Amino acid sequence: MSTITATYLVHDPKGNFEKKAEGIALGLTVGSWTDLPDLQKEQLRNHKGHVVEINELPEDTRVNQYFGSSRKQALLKIAYPAANFTPDLPAILTTVFGKLSLDGEVKLINLDFSPELASAFPGPSFGIDGIRNQLGVFERPLLMSIFKGVIGRDLQYFKNQLKEQALGGVDLVKDDEILFDNPLTPFEERITAAKEVLTATEQETGHKTLYAVNLTGRTYDLKDKAKKAAELGASALLFNVFAYGLDVLQSLAEDPDISLPIMAHPAVSGAITPSEFYGISNRLLLGKLLRLAGADLVLFPSPYGSVALRKEDAIGIAGELTEKDANWKGAFPVPSAGIHPGLTPLLLQDFGIESIINAGGGVHGHPGGAVDGGRAFRDAIDGLMLNKSLEQISQESKPLKEALELWGGLVKA
Amino acid sequence: MSTITATYLVHDPKGNFEKKAEGIALGLTVGSWTDLPDLQKEQLRNHKGHVVEINELPEDTRVNQYFGSSRKQALLKIAYPAANFTPDLPAILTTVFGKLSLDGEVKLINLDFSPELASAFPGPSFGIDGIRNQLGVFERPLLMSIFKGVIGRDLQYFKNQLKEQALGGVDLVKDDEILFDNPLTPFEERITAAKEVLTATEQETGHKTLYAVNLTGRTYDLKDKAKKAAELGASALLFNVFAYGLDVLQSLAEDPDISLPIMAHPAVSGAITPSEFYGISNRLLLGKLLRLAGADLVLFPSPYGSVALRKEDAIGIAGELTEKDANWKGAFPVPSAGIHPGLTPLLLQDFGIESIINAGGGVHGHPGGAVDGGRAFRDAIDGLMLNKSLEQISQESKPLKEALELWGGLVKA
Ligand SMILES: [Mg+2]
Ligand SMILES: [Mg+2]
Repeated sequence: MSTITATYLVHDPKGNFEKKAEGIALGLTVGSWTDLPDLQKEQLRNHKGHVVEINELPEDTRVNQYFGSSRKQALLKIAYPAANFTPDLPAILTTVFGKLSLDGEVKLINLDFSPELASAFPGPSFGIDGIRNQLGVFERPLLMSIFKGVIGRDLQYFKNQLKEQALGGVDLVKDDEILFDNPLTPFEERITAAKEVLTATEQETGHKTLYAVNLTGRTYDLKDKAKKAAELGASALLFNVFAYGLDVLQSLAEDPDISLPIMAHPAVSGAITPSEFYGISNRLLLGKLLRLAGADLVLFPSPYGSVALRKEDAIGIAGELTEKDANWKGAFPVPSAGIHPGLTPLLLQDFGIESIINAGGGVHGHPGGAVDGGRAFRDAIDGLMLNKSLEQISQESKPLKEALELWGGLVKA
Repeated sequence: MSTITATYLVHDPKGNFEKKAEGIALGLTVGSWTDLPDLQKEQLRNHKGHVVEINELPEDTRVNQYFGSSRKQALLKIAYPAANFTPDLPAILTTVFGKLSLDGEVKLINLDFSPELASAFPGPSFGIDGIRNQLGVFERPLLMSIFKGVIGRDLQYFKNQLKEQALGGVDLVKDDEILFDNPLTPFEERITAAKEVLTATEQETGHKTLYAVNLTGRTYDLKDKAKKAAELGASALLFNVFAYGLDVLQSLAEDPDISLPIMAHPAVSGAITPSEFYGISNRLLLGKLLRLAGADLVLFPSPYGSVALRKEDAIGIAGELTEKDANWKGAFPVPSAGIHPGLTPLLLQDFGIESIINAGGGVHGHPGGAVDGGRAFRDAIDGLMLNKSLEQISQESKPLKEALELWGGLVKA
C-alpha cells in the first residue's frame, strides 16, 4: 500500500506514547476505530493510519525546567495511507502536520515517501549534473557570489558589479533575495543586461558565468515571468520558496516552458525550523522537500558564520540533497553566510566536491575588489583539487594571500 | 513615505540592541551607510531602513537557564521603505523576515502597514456583514459544525451527515480539512450533493445553511476549481492557506470570478507560531495577515480545548479580525476545538456576537445525534441573546439539557 510515514519528535507532559500515537494515527485519518462495526472496519481498513514505531527518549532536565514540569520525549513514526490524500505537498502537509502542528510540543522530523508516492514528484530538472554540463565544470566545487546593495542603485551599477564578479571567475552570481521588481533595475532589464555582460566576459576570459535572477511578484504571475525570463536568456532563477509555497516551486520546476535551473533561497524558513519543540526539521524542509519539489540548487545557512546552522543540520541538508538512492536528480548544496577563502578546505571536507562555495562579503570585501575576491576563491579551490595546501597556494596567488591576511587564514574543523 | 514597520521580539546573548537594530535596518535595505559618500547617501536615503523604537525587557531566568547563558530581551521596531519591495506579501515577508528569520532568536510580532501600502491589499470580499446578509442572521453569533470521519465513506454518508447538521439549525457546515479530492466523494459531487441537501432542508425548516467545500489540489489549479465550485453553487470555500501561501489566498479573494466567502483553516500554522523565540505571532499570522489577504472567516484553536491557544492569543487574533479602524471589512473569528454548549456563555463573553461558535464532537457526540447537537447550541445561543441563563434555557430545551449533562454544564471564566 502506498503510504507516507512521518517521524515526529514529541515532548509530552503525560508521556503515554502508545495512546498518543494511536490517537494521531486515527485522528488524522478515519477518526475512530475500536467502536466501529466490522463491516465499517472492512470499508475503512485501507484508510486507517498506523503506528509504525515508538522510540522513547530520556528526559532532559533543561527542557523540564523550561516548561516548569516534566516533558517525556519520544520519536513517533506514523504511516498514513496515500489513498487519503492527493499526491501534492499541500495535501501531504495538511495530513501529516495540519491540525497536529497546533497540538502542543510536536516537531516534524522526517517524511518517508513510498516509491509510488515519490514518483509523483519531479525532483530537479537539471540537478547537479545538468548545471555542471551547462558550465562545463566537473571536477571541483562551483563558486558563487551574490550582488551586494543593489537596492536604490541603477542598471549601470548592477552591470559593473556583475562584470567584476564574473571576471573573478565565479560560476554563478545571484541576485540579492531582497531585490524585487523596481523601476531602477526591472526584472527584464536585469536579465538582458546580465546576458550582455556575461556574454562579453565569457568572450574575454573563456569562463562561463550563470546569473540567477530573483523571480518575485504575485504567485499567479510567476509562471509568465519565468517564461519571459527564459525567453530573454536568463540562465537561472532565484526563488524565495518559503515566502510562496513548496507547491509553487514544484509547478515552476515541472513547467516545460520554464527550462531554467531553480535556486531555492531559505528566506523565511527560519520561522519554521529552529525550535527544538515545534516546526519542521531543517533536514526535511530545506533538504528532502526542496529536492523532491524540484530545486536544482539550495541555499542554507552555513555552519560557520554568525547566521549559523548547527553543523549536523547543515550536513544533514546537504546529505538529503545529494543522496544517491533517492528517486530524483541530486541538487547542489549551497552553504551560505560567513564564507571566506580560509574556509575552503573545511567546506570541501564538510560538503565535498558536489557543493557550491558561496560568498558575498568574502568576495566583495577583498582589498582588490570583487575580481580579486573571486580569484582568491578560485585559486584556493583549484589548488586544493591538486592536493596543495592553502599555505602553498597562497604563495602563488596574491589574491588568496591578501584574503587570508584579511579574514584570518585557514579555518580548521 | 510609505513604509512597513515590523516589531520583533529578540533574545540576544550580547544585548547591544542599538547596534543590533541598526544592523537589521541597514542589512535588510541598503546594506551599508556610514562609510558611503554623501552623494550616495542622498541617492539611497529613501531606501534606508530606520530604527523606530527599542524597548528593552527584563531578563527571564527560565529562558537563561534554557539557553545555558544570559539572553537579553527587547522589542525592536524597524521601518522599511515600501520603495524597496513590491506591494505583495511574499516580497514583504522576504524583506522583513527573510534572512532575519534565520538569525538567532527573533520572532516577528507585528507588522504595521502605512495606509498607502495597506490599500494594496483587498481584505475580505464578503466579511462579517456579507456573510450575515447571505444567511439573513444578524443578532447572534453564527453556529458552525464540521463533517466527521468522511474519509473512506461514500456520497450518501456525506449527504446524510450534512442533512443532520443542517436540520440541527447550524448556519455553516465545513468539510474536514483533511478531506481531499477522492473517488468516493469528489469535489464537484460534494458541491452538487450539498446544494441538493441544503435546498431541501431550507425548504423544510426555513433555515439557510452554507457548506464550505475544501479547496485542495495543485496551486495553479485552484482558481479553476474555485470558479467551478462557484458555478456549481458552492456557498463557501475552506482553504488550508498555510499549506499553500498567503498570496494564494489573496489571489483567490481578489478574483472576481470566484465570488465565494473564503474560510481560512489554521492547518500547518502551528509550525510557525508557538515558539516563544522564533516564528511569527498568532495575532499577526492568523489575525492581521489573514484578514488583509482576504479571508472572510478564520478558524483558530480556541483557548478552551485540549488543542488550546493561550487566551490572549485567541482574543488577539479575534481582535485583529474584527478591529473597526482597519482598512478592510471585518472577518469572522471562529475559535475551534473543544467546544460544547456549556461554553457558549464564555464564548460570548470572550469573542462577542461577531464570532462563530464551531463544534465537531460537540455536535456529533450529542446523545440525540447531530440534529439535537445543533439544536442544543442554537437553543443556548438564542436564549443567551434573550438574556436568559444557560440553566433557564436548559429547562425549556431537552437537547441542551442532555448536552450539559454529557459535557459537564456551564463553564465559567
Ligand atoms: Mg542576501
Ligand atoms: Mg478537522
